[in-house]
Amino acid sequence: MRTIDLNADLGEGYGPWTMGDDAAMLDIVSSANVACGGHASDPDTMARTLGLARARGVVTGAHPSYPDKEGFGRRRLPATPDEIERFVAAQVGALIAIGRLVGQPVSYVKPHGALGNVAAAEAPVAAAIVRAVRAIDPGLAILAISGTALETVARAEGLATYSEIFADRGYTPAGQLVPRAEPGAMITDAGVASDRLLAFLDSGDMPTVGGAPVRLAADSVCIHGDSDHAVAMARHIRDSFRARGLAIAPFMGS
Amino acid sequence: MRTIDLNADLGEGYGPWTMGDDAAMLDIVSSANVACGGHASDPDTMARTLGLARARGVVTGAHPSYPDKEGFGRRRLPATPDEIERFVAAQVGALIAIGRLVGQPVSYVKPHGALGNVAAAEAPVAAAIVRAVRAIDPGLAILAISGTALETVARAEGLATYSEIFADRGYTPAGQLVPRAEPGAMITDAGVASDRLLAFLDSGDMPTVGGAPVRLAADSVCIHGDSDHAVAMARHIRDSFRARGLAIAPFMGS
Amino acid sequence: MRTIDLNADLGEGYGPWTMGDDAAMLDIVSSANVACGGHASDPDTMARTLGLARARGVVTGAHPSYPDKEGFGRRRLPATPDEIERFVAAQVGALIAIGRLVGQPVSYVKPHGALGNVAAAEAPVAAAIVRAVRAIDPGLAILAISGTALETVARAEGLATYSEIFADRGYTPAGQLVPRAEPGAMITDAGVASDRLLAFLDSGDMPTVGGAPVRLAADSVCIHGDSDHAVAMARHIRDSFRARGLAIAPFMGS
Amino acid sequence: MRTIDLNADLGEGYGPWTMGDDAAMLDIVSSANVACGGHASDPDTMARTLGLARARGVVTGAHPSYPDKEGFGRRRLPATPDEIERFVAAQVGALIAIGRLVGQPVSYVKPHGALGNVAAAEAPVAAAIVRAVRAIDPGLAILAISGTALETVARAEGLATYSEIFADRGYTPAGQLVPRAEPGAMITDAGVASDRLLAFLDSGDMPTVGGAPVRLAADSVCIHGDSDHAVAMARHIRDSFRARGLAIAPFMGS
Repeated sequence: MRTIDLNADLGEGYGPWTMGDDAAMLDIVSSANVACGGHASDPDTMARTLGLARARGVVTGAHPSYPDKEGFGRRRLPATPDEIERFVAAQVGALIAIGRLVGQPVSYVKPHGALGNVAAAEAPVAAAIVRAVRAIDPGLAILAISGTALETVARAEGLATYSEIFADRGYTPAGQLVPRAEPGAMITDAGVASDRLLAFLDSGDMPTVGGAPVRLAADSVCIHGDSDHAVAMARHIRDSFRARGLAIAPFMGS
Repeated sequence: MRTIDLNADLGEGYGPWTMGDDAAMLDIVSSANVACGGHASDPDTMARTLGLARARGVVTGAHPSYPDKEGFGRRRLPATPDEIERFVAAQVGALIAIGRLVGQPVSYVKPHGALGNVAAAEAPVAAAIVRAVRAIDPGLAILAISGTALETVARAEGLATYSEIFADRGYTPAGQLVPRAEPGAMITDAGVASDRLLAFLDSGDMPTVGGAPVRLAADSVCIHGDSDHAVAMARHIRDSFRARGLAIAPFMGS
Repeated sequence: MRTIDLNADLGEGYGPWTMGDDAAMLDIVSSANVACGGHASDPDTMARTLGLARARGVVTGAHPSYPDKEGFGRRRLPATPDEIERFVAAQVGALIAIGRLVGQPVSYVKPHGALGNVAAAEAPVAAAIVRAVRAIDPGLAILAISGTALETVARAEGLATYSEIFADRGYTPAGQLVPRAEPGAMITDAGVASDRLLAFLDSGDMPTVGGAPVRLAADSVCIHGDSDHAVAMARHIRDSFRARGLAIAPFMGS
Repeated sequence: MRTIDLNADLGEGYGPWTMGDDAAMLDIVSSANVACGGHASDPDTMARTLGLARARGVVTGAHPSYPDKEGFGRRRLPATPDEIERFVAAQVGALIAIGRLVGQPVSYVKPHGALGNVAAAEAPVAAAIVRAVRAIDPGLAILAISGTALETVARAEGLATYSEIFADRGYTPAGQLVPRAEPGAMITDAGVASDRLLAFLDSGDMPTVGGAPVRLAADSVCIHGDSDHAVAMARHIRDSFRARGLAIAPFMGS
């Protein structure tokens, strides 16, 4: 039976505040990218999120970010690669330690938001993240956006490297995400998103905005859960996959 | 040749701010308790401090605290044992990860300030710290104030446990520290401090304020470096020990 | 026509996070206690909240707190009256300045959460808050829980002082709130809450848990909006008041 | 008798940490730019600093910054003019309120570090700062680097506007500061600095690196106190001024 991983960003509350419906999403995804104090979360939130994932058998990764809760990690902060290496290490190390308390291992690392975008485009930043991850534990994997600098660098440095595509984002003929401000950037119809993903998973060819399909590799599909609509769309995608005989399963064992 | 460990709190800067003379103290101590983001420090400061310790062959431990930079960890914050367990884990985990980047292991844990005082007196808090440390790595040791709840709990739970006495604090006949506001609490004369420590290390009997000497055990002597006077006193103590044939050496291998 | 004020805590988001439905509550209340960076909020959230209040003609007050976002201001932090005076001043001053940008004045001060509880019980803390408020602007009013130290001190010091009762909390025969852990502490039925408030507003006698009614004064009724249920209850209370000929109007002009 | 103002950045500690020797500098300067929680400080530190200034009759201004303590306000953070307007307002409002507690008015505003540099070069950011300041109190002045966008915008918008030159920085023939990485950027010899300033104050012509002198206006000379050397240099400049019959006096009344 063919399988595919679904991943989502979870544990993005902070103190008294919550974000999205983690419990609902943990019933849908096979891998959860868990905030670790950069753009969101705190020790109690990390423990709660990892505990929920453990109870559902969901594999967990660390989701480090520029240290910027007010901006939710969506802003590129001025930081050298050495500084990035250090704050990524501190965040991932904190989550691993909480995971030991809870009995839930951290299996991979996926950079969040602006840090993910910068690591996708700039090899020195990708290399800083890879150095931090390998120094902490060479058994940790990297989950990278398909076709990016992070994927290339992580693979070249010998880390287990998995690639993801986005369920709700349009692609350019060059295999990049269409910028959010441009037409075709966001896919909001669940049926359209499912059909596109299923066609891609069959063929390896991703439709693009304004060009020929592009070949992409994908070990995982990134879905979102930050609104009721997003959760419904995630559920629809999962159900469509299952209906076509695709099982949802983690890209790596925990 | 007899040996004794000298330990001090280091790496207690934050962002642009520094505290004390870490470089001077690292030439004196054999073990350094390194702030890990609770009462002080940030990823860059942790990396710098661990790198300095590595260059001098000083053994390093994590120095977790109530998360309270404005209060420098000297205030007891309201927190349940479960909350303490989690923030201790997150702080220690962050430092371990930074240590892997720098090539300097974290060998032990010593709670800072108010957290140290509470863990000395209250077994549930001591047990929370011990749970966090053992979950992260059962090979980590605990450095506890001699004769406290933390020492008892850590030993009972099977962690390697070492005890410390203070170079510059008076003791009560019950083996407790004289509260800072009371006469005899602080020893400010370097010669008096050295003589007292040497006599104690020979006999195991610690002089007390207003009573008979009390028997204490000590694997390490805690010294301070937060002022020029403190650094000079630390240097004097080290020199006095050496002059009496006591070598300064870590209480545990790195 | 008789009037009564309804007040609620608003603007309690932080960065990307929201709390409750501020827009819905601003259609119900006549006074809004606006978070000012202690337990919640940031400059953008303050500006947005004050702007929403301005658009609806709702009077706004500052809602200072122990500086404790992770604990949402519900924990009593160790702080001297002098320290409290300073952080209250800084928070209130920040909100006033943002209000000048937005064209919405800050008319009164009501301490939040643990700070409110401590100021209700302890005159030195109440006096610290009153000193801060009067130093900033002696035209600012205090909104205090009816029958508390804060009410007494603020009035004695000559500040305009208004008192509030809680829509959803039970009272003891001594006029105190029933502690949350005890039976009768919370009133969850909207009809029960409305009937009790209307009876009280007619008579000045508040029913109590396990005793005779107690006389209380009230310029305002505090309602909550932190859940869909709470918003519905708030709406029910407002509608019941109006149906009985009580107009909802601020306790002070803006 | 001719007068000139000397200004310096003060109150730049945070919690337990200090920066520079504020007491020494307050005996030298006539105006103090007081950190207000952006790059440094907290309510206690603000109160202490304003109190020290009050005791010495030094005029005080607010020194707002990008909210970035770890980077000490030296990094340009991503922020729109609207966001800058709001955080500047919040910081200045907090300091004004603390000043009311202490009895020390805030008379002017000077942006710190990266915010100062951006406001010097970019009119929309300068305008955001000016809007915030004028909304809070149109009686507040602006202290701007001579010849910058901030000076132009503040003056055009009708705020009292004063200009400053730097005691220890080289100028280009265009009247800009020589970038720190280039030769001639820093003047480290106190005698050289004093002589240059005195010549400039007589003639209005500032010597430049690699070109003809440039005409600059100056109501104040900015000096630094972040090291023993800097304090000694500040003292030397003050003494040289006095020896030439220039009195040190604030550019505006308090």
